[in-house]
Amino acid sequence: MDFYEKHKGTLDKALETIRTRQYWSPYPESPRAYGEDAPADGEAAFQERLGKPFVVDQPSDGFMEVAETSPYGTELGVTYPRSSPEALLAAAEAAMPAWAAATPATRAGVCLEILDRLAHRSFEMAHAVMQTTGQAFLMAFQAGGPHALDRALEAVAYAYAEQTRLPGEMRWEKPQGKRDPIVIDKTWRLKPRGVAVTIGVSTFPTWNGYPGVLASLATGNPVIIKPHPGTILPFALFTETARAVVAEAGFDANLVTLLVDTPDAPVAKDLVLDPRVKLVDYTGGPTFGTWLEENVHNALVFTEKAGVNSVVIDSADDLKGVFRNLSVSMSMYSGQMCTTPQNVYVPRGGIDVGEEHVSFDDVAQGLADAIGGLLSDDQRAGDILGAIKGEATLRRIDEAAAGGTPILPSRAVTNPTFPDAVMRTPLLVAVDAADRDVYMREMFGPVAFVIATDDTEQSLALAVESAKASGAITWLVYSTDDEVVAAAEDAALDAGVSVAFNLTGALFVNQSAAFSDFHVTGANPAGNASLTDPAFVAGRFRVVGVRKPV
Amino acid sequence: MDFYEKHKGTLDKALETIRTRQYWSPYPESPRAYGEDAPADGEAAFQERLGKPFVVDQPSDGFMEVAETSPYGTELGVTYPRSSPEALLAAAEAAMPAWAAATPATRAGVCLEILDRLAHRSFEMAHAVMQTTGQAFLMAFQAGGPHALDRALEAVAYAYAEQTRLPGEMRWEKPQGKRDPIVIDKTWRLKPRGVAVTIGVSTFPTWNGYPGVLASLATGNPVIIKPHPGTILPFALFTETARAVVAEAGFDANLVTLLVDTPDAPVAKDLVLDPRVKLVDYTGGPTFGTWLEENVHNALVFTEKAGVNSVVIDSADDLKGVFRNLSVSMSMYSGQMCTTPQNVYVPRGGIDVGEEHVSFDDVAQGLADAIGGLLSDDQRAGDILGAIKGEATLRRIDEAAAGGTPILPSRAVTNPTFPDAVMRTPLLVAVDAADRDVYMREMFGPVAFVIATDDTEQSLALAVESAKASGAITWLVYSTDDEVVAAAEDAALDAGVSVAFNLTGALFVNQSAAFSDFHVTGANPAGNASLTDPAFVAGRFRVVGVRKPV
Repeated sequence: MDFYEKHKGTLDKALETIRTRQYWSPYPESPRAYGEDAPADGEAAFQERLGKPFVVDQPSDGFMEVAETSPYGTELGVTYPRSSPEALLAAAEAAMPAWAAATPATRAGVCLEILDRLAHRSFEMAHAVMQTTGQAFLMAFQAGGPHALDRALEAVAYAYAEQTRLPGEMRWEKPQGKRDPIVIDKTWRLKPRGVAVTIGVSTFPTWNGYPGVLASLATGNPVIIKPHPGTILPFALFTETARAVVAEAGFDANLVTLLVDTPDAPVAKDLVLDPRVKLVDYTGGPTFGTWLEENVHNALVFTEKAGVNSVVIDSADDLKGVFRNLSVSMSMYSGQMCTTPQNVYVPRGGIDVGEEHVSFDDVAQGLADAIGGLLSDDQRAGDILGAIKGEATLRRIDEAAAGGTPILPSRAVTNPTFPDAVMRTPLLVAVDAADRDVYMREMFGPVAFVIATDDTEQSLALAVESAKASGAITWLVYSTDDEVVAAAEDAALDAGVSVAFNLTGALFVNQSAAFSDFHVTGANPAGNASLTDPAFVAGRFRVVGVRKPV
Repeated sequence: MDFYEKHKGTLDKALETIRTRQYWSPYPESPRAYGEDAPADGEAAFQERLGKPFVVDQPSDGFMEVAETSPYGTELGVTYPRSSPEALLAAAEAAMPAWAAATPATRAGVCLEILDRLAHRSFEMAHAVMQTTGQAFLMAFQAGGPHALDRALEAVAYAYAEQTRLPGEMRWEKPQGKRDPIVIDKTWRLKPRGVAVTIGVSTFPTWNGYPGVLASLATGNPVIIKPHPGTILPFALFTETARAVVAEAGFDANLVTLLVDTPDAPVAKDLVLDPRVKLVDYTGGPTFGTWLEENVHNALVFTEKAGVNSVVIDSADDLKGVFRNLSVSMSMYSGQMCTTPQNVYVPRGGIDVGEEHVSFDDVAQGLADAIGGLLSDDQRAGDILGAIKGEATLRRIDEAAAGGTPILPSRAVTNPTFPDAVMRTPLLVAVDAADRDVYMREMFGPVAFVIATDDTEQSLALAVESAKASGAITWLVYSTDDEVVAAAEDAALDAGVSVAFNLTGALFVNQSAAFSDFHVTGANPAGNASLTDPAFVAGRFRVVGVRKPV
């Protein structure tokens, strides 16, 4: 089967769309698009995984118990192959030469077939993502399945584009005045960089992980996936699918392997310091991300860490729309998105809304009421909030409440389907701009601050400051004043943060669209890479020139 | 004056040529192309610089004596502005905003005007390069002038191409089934990374330095140039020209500044560790280059260090042609090019030349004779060799002679025009493959080894090994056997070294052509960057997305 021919249309459309940046998604985000049997089949396939060894035919020594747990309280009980970094590094190096020698088209075809097969397993993946990360089902389906596949395809398209910028064999002729010209036949051979390691995150393993994995794979590098010790199953499903396709295409399945570890015996540091490792992709907390950036000299390191995302409310036409939009943004997945707004800056003198003036307290209370209303029904709240993944996240809720005036307490939500699920609504705390220690740091999870500032100028200045100090991935600014909008855009540029204005409808600032929006700019401490831009891909292979005189 | 309009034709041709990789040079390499008066005018302009302060209107505190010396024995006596890193960093940051806000086209236009004016100063630059580096005049003219400008233009073209891959303002529309689509107006704003530092090399300051300087400048970053303490004048001329053009275009001249230091009080380390520095380009020895790669976390670091370049002689049709070509490659600029072959591997059982078999000793002696013949006349030798730049290079000649059997001693050459010039012919030493300590390291300068190996397979294996351990920029392989050629190409790919085959004519392996050949692959310790590929440019700016609902 020629996977390139099979998927050429999709690849071409992806190549076009990364240029036009228009809306496009080849993998439907609506669960209904997958056929009548897909939901039940997918759930059954997921259930079939539980309480069993997850077999991956890679170098390993039996199976290991892991620390993977479900925030929904579901007993997972999956064990995974116990593999050593050394065995997987050796296997990856052995698998590499034939893959490195394949054409970019062949590799793109294999990558797209992997994505295509994963698309057909979107329900199984949705349950795996939901149960390991705590996302609500619809988010797990969309972000874990089709949207992650969009991001993966985008990375493959960039990889293909970068690898095909040079001509093939060509003749070069340099005039020499009256003498004969110098005539040289030239070719360029692509040299993939070497073993790639992807270090997965606990919350969005596929959405954040696929771009690096696929960019490395599409440029000819083998990939060792080191999932987060608490969120393994989604990457295990990916690994299984990828290995099957790779083998079917005639390559060594060890191009993609899974290296599982536990919090008690982490392997990532030793792994990435091995000189055979040439590429590292990381999503996760800033401490380890910064360690990687500063200590891994044998590899290119791409990070997506975290940050303090800001909302600046200056003025509005439709304050209800502001609250409606913001309340959803702040509630989705209990604020456990790296794009969730944390700090909402409001002038302490209040804001203009049309002809009216609304006080700071009324803005803060309005937002609190909107969140409270959105999440008043437990069933509905559960579908928005999902469950809390980390113990540390729960601790931060209590810590944050002590830092200011709570205007909306965090409420425990009970879910009839998953009575053991740990679900909490967002805590909203009012603070003054002077209370910098409280809000000028990342409080990952269902915690947000409404910060009283002197004016919008100070709001923007504080948002810039926190972005430069702690990183930021999203900004959302509400203003009806063109000058403020222009100033905010300049401030966002200064801070290196993507910015959206006046979102009151169905688009939420948390969402970034593949083929169009860049996720993370790489221009502040939130991460050094951008999903996906040419710089994310261009260094994953090198070019070796070959010259032969005619 | 709209510099973009003025130079649009040149930019467009450069953009086309980096795709076609065909021969092209907008800056004539023949000195005769510059008009009758140019040689005398240029020399006079150079002479006018000597013994005087070199005035640069940048933040400074008087002028300083420097350690710049001429390998030709010419008394230079130029003093340069004494500037502090702090003053230049502050000036660079102050100059940045307006430049960062300019369009890629405006910036490209300014860059091309700088190159155009430098082209008109090619004779002055040639004398500056010749007298500071020790290059012979023709090399100093070509490599220091037009070829360096070609490389600079190439970098500007890549910078322009990378910055213009996104559409301008656009409308994005996502269907929502029966509901209204989500409609968003999007723009992307480019965010230059920040202050760039170029650390210059003593031997080819402009050829190696321009690409980084121009890539940073064209992507909106200010540049502080820290020239090698022994080779300052070429970059001072560049700085003068660049500042004049920048100011004429209405920008702050402090976008380009010159930070001079001395070996006794080096400033580079402190400078590059300043958090305001976001880009570092370096050409020079591997020790400091590796230090930069491992210790500068606040900036992207692009290095070109050095390596052990290899020649593998397996068989030949035209052994005289081999010797003729190699003797020139090994003699040019006394081996002080980072592309000069150092190790010549020859099977100890000899090689096939057509129907004949030629012994190892005859190959070694033939090469020695060719070099000896080429350089037998002192006047001609001087025109090829130039002069020796570094004390350390002279010491290496003596050291190398002790490691094996000298088959061609290094001879001191006297130059009638410059009686104080330090000129030496290459030393050729025969060693056995077992004498690894002698040849498995870089011996920068007029030193080469002819290494007796078991066979070509061992020759290639040793060349791979030294490239992986110490880096390599060029390989040259002679073989009439297609299988050996294929194996050598694979070995070069493995080693990450560009390779040329069977050069016997007017092309020398030392030469790489702008717009077509990549200089350094970035795939071995010879450097982490390639001049110029997309990866060299893509990270010098970031993209900030702006979204506004319609």
